[in-house]
Amino acid sequence: MSAACIFCKIIKGDIPCFKLYESAKVLAFLDIQPLSKGHALVIPKTHGEKLHDVPDDELAELLPIAKKLALAVGAVDYNILQNNGRIAHQEVDHVHVHMIPKPNETEGLTVGWPAQQTDMAKLKALLEELKPKM
Amino acid sequence: MSAACIFCKIIKGDIPCFKLYESAKVLAFLDIQPLSKGHALVIPKTHGEKLHDVPDDELAELLPIAKKLALAVGAVDYNILQNNGRIAHQEVDHVHVHMIPKPNETEGLTVGWPAQQTDMAKLKALLEELKPKM
Repeated sequence: MSAACIFCKIIKGDIPCFKLYESAKVLAFLDIQPLSKGHALVIPKTHGEKLHDVPDDELAELLPIAKKLALAVGAVDYNILQNNGRIAHQEVDHVHVHMIPKPNETEGLTVGWPAQQTDMAKLKALLEELKPKM
Repeated sequence: MSAACIFCKIIKGDIPCFKLYESAKVLAFLDIQPLSKGHALVIPKTHGEKLHDVPDDELAELLPIAKKLALAVGAVDYNILQNNGRIAHQEVDHVHVHMIPKPNETEGLTVGWPAQQTDMAKLKALLEELKPKM
């Protein structure tokens, strides 16, 4: 729990929200500045700024609840997005998973995809570097 | 398992991948057309086109493994993204969660955020419509 965190205040009930779901570990509510109709958030109750700060048992509940949100909204096409860091578009420093319906080209998330060339040798070297850390 | 699905072929071992992690339920590997160094994917072993097609117990493993990837890569800022539907930028029709490091403005994911005006009455009506479906 972080005293200054708006999402912690929502969890505590000090700030109201459009609550869709609550368990011991997570809370889901409508985004009040939606990118599209049905845009909702799922958050862990533990205050963690970034994904790697949140315990696995809380992370484990986030996608099943995002799925529940997509089904309730009746979203056919949608994006699940969780941003870490200001440069990565995170605006509230408490982990939140967005479920953003994509009903048409103008509403919902817009994604830019600056894919790099495939470089097999580089990837192989990176794999060897990362494997012992997994 | 879908015979035509490239990710099912990777799971089966018929197509190689830069494998970082495997459990009974999920597989993680490097994206071969990365948006940034360390861009990796986690996929459930069950073939499901979209998030809502995947069993909860497999969904539950995806974010803890995405966290493991972020920590192994040493990503400070990063995006977790899972796209559903062609219009939402899904390119392979087997659920996959991207872990995309965002080291600077040019590399990694670019996000467009066409936020709508807050409309409390509309949100309240939507909440009442969705609540019984959760």
